Amino acid sequence: MSERTVYLFGDGKADGAASDKALLGGKGANLAEMTRLGLPVPPGFTVTTRACNYYFAHGEQHPPGLDEEIRAGVRHIEALTGKGFGSGENPLLVSVRSGAPASMPGMMDTVLNLGLNQTTVKALAARSGKPRFAWDSYRRFLHMFGDVVLRIHASRFHRAQKALFGERGVEELSVEELGRLCAAWEEVIVQSIGRFPHDPWDQLTAAIDAVFKSFNTQRARYYRKTHNIPEDCGTGVNVQAMVFGNLGESSATGVAFTRDPNTGERIFFGEWLPNAQGEDVVAGLVTPHPVNNLRDPDAQETLERRMPAAYAELIRLQAILERHYRDMQDIEFTVEEGRLYLLQTRNGKRTPAASVRIAVELVEDGVITIEQALARVDPKLLELVLRPVLDPKAKRKVIGKGLPASPGAASGRVVFHADEAQESVDRGEQVVLVRMETSPEDIQGMTVSAGILTSRGGQTSHAAVVARGMGKPCVVGATDIVVDYERQLFYAGDEVIRRGMWITIDGATGEIMEGKVPTLPAATDSGAMSQLLGWADARARLKVRANADTGKDAKRARELGALGIGLCRTEHMFFQPVALRAMRQLILAEDRKARLRALSQVLPIQRDDFVEIFEAMDGLPVTIRLLDPPLHEFLPSTPEDISSVAEDLGVKPELLQERLRQLHEANPMMGHRGCRLGVTSPEIYQTQVRAIFEAAVQATKAGVVVMPEVMIPLVAIEEEIRRLRALVEETAEQVMADAGVHVHYMVGTMIELPRACMIADRIAQHADFFSFGTNDLTQMTYGFSRDDMGKFFTSYVHEGVLRDSPLATFDVEGVGQLVEVGCKKGRAAKEKLKLGVCGEHGGDPTGIGFFHKVGLDYVSCSPYRVPVARLAAAHAALGLL
Amino acid sequence: MSERTVYLFGDGKADGAASDKALLGGKGANLAEMTRLGLPVPPGFTVTTRACNYYFAHGEQHPPGLDEEIRAGVRHIEALTGKGFGSGENPLLVSVRSGAPASMPGMMDTVLNLGLNQTTVKALAARSGKPRFAWDSYRRFLHMFGDVVLRIHASRFHRAQKALFGERGVEELSVEELGRLCAAWEEVIVQSIGRFPHDPWDQLTAAIDAVFKSFNTQRARYYRKTHNIPEDCGTGVNVQAMVFGNLGESSATGVAFTRDPNTGERIFFGEWLPNAQGEDVVAGLVTPHPVNNLRDPDAQETLERRMPAAYAELIRLQAILERHYRDMQDIEFTVEEGRLYLLQTRNGKRTPAASVRIAVELVEDGVITIEQALARVDPKLLELVLRPVLDPKAKRKVIGKGLPASPGAASGRVVFHADEAQESVDRGEQVVLVRMETSPEDIQGMTVSAGILTSRGGQTSHAAVVARGMGKPCVVGATDIVVDYERQLFYAGDEVIRRGMWITIDGATGEIMEGKVPTLPAATDSGAMSQLLGWADARARLKVRANADTGKDAKRARELGALGIGLCRTEHMFFQPVALRAMRQLILAEDRKARLRALSQVLPIQRDDFVEIFEAMDGLPVTIRLLDPPLHEFLPSTPEDISSVAEDLGVKPELLQERLRQLHEANPMMGHRGCRLGVTSPEIYQTQVRAIFEAAVQATKAGVVVMPEVMIPLVAIEEEIRRLRALVEETAEQVMADAGVHVHYMVGTMIELPRACMIADRIAQHADFFSFGTNDLTQMTYGFSRDDMGKFFTSYVHEGVLRDSPLATFDVEGVGQLVEVGCKKGRAAKEKLKLGVCGEHGGDPTGIGFFHKVGLDYVSCSPYRVPVARLAAAHAALGLL
Repeated sequence: MSERTVYLFGDGKADGAASDKALLGGKGANLAEMTRLGLPVPPGFTVTTRACNYYFAHGEQHPPGLDEEIRAGVRHIEALTGKGFGSGENPLLVSVRSGAPASMPGMMDTVLNLGLNQTTVKALAARSGKPRFAWDSYRRFLHMFGDVVLRIHASRFHRAQKALFGERGVEELSVEELGRLCAAWEEVIVQSIGRFPHDPWDQLTAAIDAVFKSFNTQRARYYRKTHNIPEDCGTGVNVQAMVFGNLGESSATGVAFTRDPNTGERIFFGEWLPNAQGEDVVAGLVTPHPVNNLRDPDAQETLERRMPAAYAELIRLQAILERHYRDMQDIEFTVEEGRLYLLQTRNGKRTPAASVRIAVELVEDGVITIEQALARVDPKLLELVLRPVLDPKAKRKVIGKGLPASPGAASGRVVFHADEAQESVDRGEQVVLVRMETSPEDIQGMTVSAGILTSRGGQTSHAAVVARGMGKPCVVGATDIVVDYERQLFYAGDEVIRRGMWITIDGATGEIMEGKVPTLPAATDSGAMSQLLGWADARARLKVRANADTGKDAKRARELGALGIGLCRTEHMFFQPVALRAMRQLILAEDRKARLRALSQVLPIQRDDFVEIFEAMDGLPVTIRLLDPPLHEFLPSTPEDISSVAEDLGVKPELLQERLRQLHEANPMMGHRGCRLGVTSPEIYQTQVRAIFEAAVQATKAGVVVMPEVMIPLVAIEEEIRRLRALVEETAEQVMADAGVHVHYMVGTMIELPRACMIADRIAQHADFFSFGTNDLTQMTYGFSRDDMGKFFTSYVHEGVLRDSPLATFDVEGVGQLVEVGCKKGRAAKEKLKLGVCGEHGGDPTGIGFFHKVGLDYVSCSPYRVPVARLAAAHAALGLL
Repeated sequence: MSERTVYLFGDGKADGAASDKALLGGKGANLAEMTRLGLPVPPGFTVTTRACNYYFAHGEQHPPGLDEEIRAGVRHIEALTGKGFGSGENPLLVSVRSGAPASMPGMMDTVLNLGLNQTTVKALAARSGKPRFAWDSYRRFLHMFGDVVLRIHASRFHRAQKALFGERGVEELSVEELGRLCAAWEEVIVQSIGRFPHDPWDQLTAAIDAVFKSFNTQRARYYRKTHNIPEDCGTGVNVQAMVFGNLGESSATGVAFTRDPNTGERIFFGEWLPNAQGEDVVAGLVTPHPVNNLRDPDAQETLERRMPAAYAELIRLQAILERHYRDMQDIEFTVEEGRLYLLQTRNGKRTPAASVRIAVELVEDGVITIEQALARVDPKLLELVLRPVLDPKAKRKVIGKGLPASPGAASGRVVFHADEAQESVDRGEQVVLVRMETSPEDIQGMTVSAGILTSRGGQTSHAAVVARGMGKPCVVGATDIVVDYERQLFYAGDEVIRRGMWITIDGATGEIMEGKVPTLPAATDSGAMSQLLGWADARARLKVRANADTGKDAKRARELGALGIGLCRTEHMFFQPVALRAMRQLILAEDRKARLRALSQVLPIQRDDFVEIFEAMDGLPVTIRLLDPPLHEFLPSTPEDISSVAEDLGVKPELLQERLRQLHEANPMMGHRGCRLGVTSPEIYQTQVRAIFEAAVQATKAGVVVMPEVMIPLVAIEEEIRRLRALVEETAEQVMADAGVHVHYMVGTMIELPRACMIADRIAQHADFFSFGTNDLTQMTYGFSRDDMGKFFTSYVHEGVLRDSPLATFDVEGVGQLVEVGCKKGRAAKEKLKLGVCGEHGGDPTGIGFFHKVGLDYVSCSPYRVPVARLAAAHAALGLL
């Protein structure tokens, strides 16, 4: 390696620029860029990421020439500052900071005030005329260098301090006492490693190596793995002249954002501390002040008021930076004796809501194009815009982790049963429903709970699907908690959480926290989102529909921009009490007549439900899936429930038990469900179809434009769809003929079994549309069930066998091939075949990118994911996915 | 329709020939052919199958010209016999018989002695000088015509007879009394339908129409459907001059086979009755005599002894027929006053064993080629050659039907538990084990039972797979029986079968019969089979291996011609008592150390098992599948068992219950099993691999040529196979290095998930071989589970949605496409990739035909199916599949 390993910057000139992020790291590239812009950046140099990679590839050896280049770099700083590194007269102090190409916050190390020793500290004291500042800087250096570079436990420094001064804090010590503290801490270092590196050059080499090493800790590797950051990116090391915010009352340090990172509003936003160094703001030991009083009119200690000139300069510079970088900036600054310096700038982190607002307003400001604005926003974030999020500053005690199933944060008292949830809420309490898993009986309890937590199940388990449909925070498959219904508690590691105790869950990360962690309220202003999605729709080819089962959901979906319903599940219509009782009668019926009698009670309930849905979707298509789950889901399972249900139905419990035994399935996922029920018990589907078309007729007569699409689930065999299509047509035509009203309708099928993909050409002959059911298709293709995957999935992700659940992020490599085969064969047999997807991946950007490529007409997802899908569809059309 | 509808035959000339089967039906074509051969066939004519189709297509109208052609046909018979139809002097009597292109035994109707009435019967009496014969013939005609053509219930004739003569049989009646009986039966007909058709032409038209109609009964349609006979084949109608076997003691009738249909031996074999008509032999009211005493040296009443001239002629003619048709013939003959007539010839039905022997001996006799002999034998039959079959003559009361899971017939007393089976057998009883389903704990009981019957599960359920491996008759998924373990009985429709009662099951048809139905013993001579399979092997490209889990099975498989083991399941090695206890300790272990300690007990047991298997397969490859089932299969499930196991292991039952709860899976088929266990608990696979290679080293040292192929199950993700291959190699290399012995081995995977097929190119990079696991692949592709499919499968077959279980007959259309994708992608990535199949379809001719086409190297099946697979592989190579 003979290439250059050090890049200089300072005095308006720099070897690098913003585009050198890969080589210099984010921080180094931006320091160079700011220098080139003529901004007040203390001079310095950046050791390249390649040097870091060389270091690890060669047994922690520096690349040839590095040491010389570092020396040259220091000379460069000396020349620009007029100070001398290790000088006994006017000593140069430097900061040493890491800076990888990708942000790895808190993962890597920083050393400030490097260059001090007993000689230089005295020179600094003399030169500055502020001995307290000098000794305080030395104290800071000793602690930081000892901790970060030498890995000496902080408690050793504390013990030494306590031995000398008891409980007195450093701010209470006199200058002389600070000197004694420094001497004691030097001694701590000598005792720990045998010597103290007085020579600033030794300090610098050790600090640079420490930054290198901090790149390769287990913690940092884990962070890169979970954040998809390549292992070989390396980190840059930035060595820069120190400027001092702790040089008295005309000095200060702070962090600011060019816009409010919480809301995105166009206001300059930040915090500062007088007479302090950067880490004081970050450490949180002192409460910083706002830079201005735009947010708090009563704020007194604002930078604007205390240092108006520096503030005015900062306002000027931040505007330059935002316009230059074309994005909201997160800026670190220091004021040294009234003079402003910029230490860092980067694109600021922001809340999802702010992200949308900033992108839209940057377009309005003429800073970026609409396409750039669309590209700026990660589609997945849109699901969070309307949800409460945890206050990032709040302390949290994480007691367990599950799979993130429906984003948003929720706190509440723990309840373990759906009816308890209702009772508690009736008493005015806020609850989180904790279950091993949920079932359709729990719906009411889920509706009233603030959040849902289950110990089993995956991201498409009942709890997850229902919670997403409700837009409610949910964590599932938390295998490290153990729920004990009997004792009304759950274990989470060593913690025992009892009924009534507060917990908080974060459905975006899967974290489970003890107590009530403060949350930021959901954004109420979605004007920016509407604007952004309007732009997205104009560029997308894929249409976005919603999965919605009720009129209420349908309305919500339409508000969120759904262009129809892609999946209306009809199961819940059978769980309404009268219908459930009828279904149970049907299951116990001895003959077809009794079955039809039972179904006749279900029909009017369903008809009314369909009318509501058609009204909500006036003028838009509604895809209705005929009954899918196996019949045993309608029967009770516990002995008590069996007795009470038997009594209610007027049959012997033994009969019910016998029927349960007959219906028992070893693998219900692969059981007697979907169109298999339609084939063996055609009267159920006939009743559903009758209800759909009676509703369609009724709504049509009321002036609603109805576009029903009847969908037959779980088809594997051509004959299944052939005969069930005939059944649908016969019933539909009869209802419409009786009413004298004709409604245009379609009959199609879900493609959710691998076989259906392989014989899609034959199935297409009997279908007007295909809707890929990617949940089941993914499960069958991989051969795992969402209910059980938790057992090995955690290990799989931890061990790196899988990066993500293929139920959450579409598996383009495997399932994608099957979908592609299905599309090609289907369209080959029927050119105008309508193609869509209604599995969870209808709201997954990876999936949407793929579905766009293979030519689907639409995707359908939970209402709250409709914005995600709309933006992702635009991303797909723009080639961003 | 103006084409010809009647084909004549007689006097050495015939309009048709053997090749006209489709037009004339099998019987008509053979009557024409025999006539052309100059054999003594009574003259007659055949109404074509097209006339039959016309009849149904035109509202039961005769095609134009048919009636005239029938009249011409009768004139033709009159001319050749010199008799007159309806003549009062020398009346012509005819038989009217059905004859479809495909055999439909017992499905359609026959009328004999047609042409008789009060006038012609007297003429016949006078002309023959045998009034008893004449009136007996008239009596027969009236009964048959009344029953078959007029659909008058037989009991009405019996009542009329009883009213006149009480309990006296017809053979006890005088001629005058026979006359009165005929008058009374004419009256029965008049009372039933209003008139009696005295006119022979009316009789003939009605009889021909009756034959047509018999083609279209529900029974016949069902038969065609279940036997894959096209609905539009139609039936021919054969009208032929009667010859009389009941014309006194020099007359006779009989049925004979050119070889013994039970054993295939080259001996003329048949039965006859003097002074009788054909239906007397068939009806079974009288016991017929053997035609010769080759089988029973003591037989007195042989045709050979009683009618030596006719017998000699029959011997001469049968040889001509067999040589002409190049197959064993089933011949109907009649001797009329010493003169021999042939009434029918056809390829004779035979037992599986006979089928093989005849094919081989026809080659030896120079009658057919080896390829013809191979083509003659249905591969599926070979599985039956070595099994007992039901005596075809025995009466049986079928009380239910399940899925045929392992062929062969078995009778025994009913037991419901595996340990009861053992106790009963210990007492010297023969038992059939009846269970809802079986589990690995039942193995011992299954071993001692004569047969196995389950009410649940499909053709690859545990019971089915194990029974096939044992070569034991088995019926599974008998959903119409209801097993009640508590009351120790099962219901089958209205029948209640209690413990200890006899039942018989037929594993080839799925029938369940009450009582002990006699069986023919299994063939012991398989010399012919060896010969046939030798010829097959020489022509096949696909190699045949066996699925075998023990040394004993491996030996048996090798005897049956297996060229290696394609699937050695290792589950059973963990069910051996010491190993099972260790596995349970492993499951309950808190740390890796305890798990390793448990596994160390399993290792020597497995090593010994592998040594035995390697010895049995000296010089042949042995594919060993690493552990596949989920861990909960090793834990007890009933409360009593949980207590006793917990006690044995010295843990609290609660701990065991807790672990069971944790391990519970909603869909175990799709659960934490296969390589997923290997990834999450690598020590299990490490132990197995160590045992395999320690065994391989030991056997190699003893001079055995060992060729282990380690197979990793349930791979869906490239990373699974990558890391598990590394694990196998590491352990194997270490064992061999320690021992200083090197064994050539391979590492491969089962391709049994749709995703594995789709990413086969990536998997192939880490695999030396693929073995398609078509059981799981079929289940995942269709999305049904073998354990549950019974719930809808019966309806599916009954309703015609599916013709056959895709687990029994390979689904070329759907699963086949996935296998093809897997093969192509696998070979594209690695040209020399070894490809095989080890699912049930390795023994299914449909599957084998397909696997040959897509270029697999081998198939592997249960030992008892190895012969099936060997012959099927030859069929595939000969283009017969």
